[in-house]
Amino acid sequence: METMRWKDEGFLELLDQTRLPGKVCYVACRDYRDVAKAIKNMQVRGAPAIGAAAAYGMALGALNIEAGSKEDFISKIEGIGRELVSTRPTAVNLQWAVERVIREISTVKFDEAASYKKMVLETAHAIYREDIAGNRSIGMHGQELVPAEARVLTHCNAGSLATAGYGTALGVVRAAYEAGKKVSVYADETRPLLQGARLTAWEMVQENIPVTLITDSMAGYLMAKGMVDLVIVGADRIAANGDVANKIGTYSLAVLAGEHGIPFYVAAPFSTVDLNLVTGADIPIEERNHSEVTSLAGSAIAPDGVNVWNPAFDVTPNHLITAIITDRGVLRPPYQVSLRQ
Amino acid sequence: METMRWKDEGFLELLDQTRLPGKVCYVACRDYRDVAKAIKNMQVRGAPAIGAAAAYGMALGALNIEAGSKEDFISKIEGIGRELVSTRPTAVNLQWAVERVIREISTVKFDEAASYKKMVLETAHAIYREDIAGNRSIGMHGQELVPAEARVLTHCNAGSLATAGYGTALGVVRAAYEAGKKVSVYADETRPLLQGARLTAWEMVQENIPVTLITDSMAGYLMAKGMVDLVIVGADRIAANGDVANKIGTYSLAVLAGEHGIPFYVAAPFSTVDLNLVTGADIPIEERNHSEVTSLAGSAIAPDGVNVWNPAFDVTPNHLITAIITDRGVLRPPYQVSLRQ
Repeated sequence: METMRWKDEGFLELLDQTRLPGKVCYVACRDYRDVAKAIKNMQVRGAPAIGAAAAYGMALGALNIEAGSKEDFISKIEGIGRELVSTRPTAVNLQWAVERVIREISTVKFDEAASYKKMVLETAHAIYREDIAGNRSIGMHGQELVPAEARVLTHCNAGSLATAGYGTALGVVRAAYEAGKKVSVYADETRPLLQGARLTAWEMVQENIPVTLITDSMAGYLMAKGMVDLVIVGADRIAANGDVANKIGTYSLAVLAGEHGIPFYVAAPFSTVDLNLVTGADIPIEERNHSEVTSLAGSAIAPDGVNVWNPAFDVTPNHLITAIITDRGVLRPPYQVSLRQ
Repeated sequence: METMRWKDEGFLELLDQTRLPGKVCYVACRDYRDVAKAIKNMQVRGAPAIGAAAAYGMALGALNIEAGSKEDFISKIEGIGRELVSTRPTAVNLQWAVERVIREISTVKFDEAASYKKMVLETAHAIYREDIAGNRSIGMHGQELVPAEARVLTHCNAGSLATAGYGTALGVVRAAYEAGKKVSVYADETRPLLQGARLTAWEMVQENIPVTLITDSMAGYLMAKGMVDLVIVGADRIAANGDVANKIGTYSLAVLAGEHGIPFYVAAPFSTVDLNLVTGADIPIEERNHSEVTSLAGSAIAPDGVNVWNPAFDVTPNHLITAIITDRGVLRPPYQVSLRQ
């Protein structure tokens, strides 16, 4: 199943992840605003996937730019980039992809707008391809940390659906499975939006990798009963000291893994690292709509008048992370040093 | 709102908690099997509430007993008791209530079945009344542990709906509120059955006690941000060493509270203590239907073919519990000693 696909007719198709697992359907994005909306609504989600989608959003935006000079083109595409980046504040890949597109054209002399437009699309294709290759590399490095028989607990969806393909945390699971290891997955359902139940479980079922679904609050007891060998999660932003922002609930898992002496791994491409931020305290945490918590599948599950706190992410401090698995290799503490290298 | 009410016409009405907060309606139980079914379906739930409901179930069952001797009556009511106890294995209050009813009639000479029937109903009334009084006593003892301003995190529903009235964990909140303390509640939604979202939030909203709903996986981050002063939960069974079985997710909360230096309290009537069990490892843990996890409000939220693990309870070891608040006072470690006294 492809998370996104560029159509030669000049538009982007995004797998509508809000409809999974019930319905498999694609939304057509013919304008960068369609991409921005799809990111905001989480029809496409996952840090690397929204990075690649934003790059294609830049390509769509570029198609309609009329510009007579380099400055003119760059100023217009920067405006489009700002709109795309503003959709979701926590994942840094969005910003990284937008900046990369602008950097690429900035290095080239202006000839006519058409060649810039082509270059933006080529950069988007490169980001897409490199993400898949990077995830295979994460898988290769990460699977060496997975024992011959392993029960892996994961949270949210850091699978092929969260990326251009193959996945980060689930890329490690896939690589271990492909290497002939006896690997099985426990998937936290991941309230409020149930990416674990809807997406991770679906990916694993499709590939016949054994998967057991639990509610988020069962993870601690699962560990206490000795049923988990390692935890692997993805990341939305990694600070220079190795603090990790990831889906809300990741921090609880990391504390619980520490309590039970279970290795806790983060798998992410290097584009998720933000060396500009000294610690995770500086990572902006998105708060989402209260209705995500108070209703489900259109039904109210809480009384009117209740307050809600709905942060979409939390920050896990570096000391709780056994290793960070990147496309460039496995990083160990102290991350201040290993991330800079 | 009454959790249950005995009607003088000779039947029991139970508030159907599966319909809350959307609908407030009562189910009429005219036979003990109706009560058994309502307990199994969790139309009535919460350890003290199912204890009281089971006692009324015994009264309903007794009404139809034809017996010519003490042995005959007791053998028949014991059969009814076994059926009621078998509905849910973890909470000990069910067994405690059934045993108390049988003990009461065992001490009295047989005259005619009618007087035994009356005695069973009177015992049920006594259990009901004593539960409310006990909860007020828990509230009185517990509120002394609550600071003048306190943000209380709770899990599941240990409120008036989980008891004959007033509640255990929420009884402490109510008593603190009534004592003029500035208390507010964070309610874990408590998947899979959402007792926190549907019941705890509803109870608090009705009484204007400030309440904020979170998903279960947010509790750790909430604590990390310094937004929780204490945690109070109920209990389904307490072993002789102070290990506590309670709603799945309680154990994770206790570990997280420990990590953050936040007091973790358990509030329960003494009828929840099972001195026959040396440790929590001996408490039977109910596993419930997988559909509780894979679907919500009638909609599938997970793919076909996924495995599920759905324990309804977990066990929190005594060393993670700051104090156990009972109707007989606040117990401190070592619980092996304080529970026996």
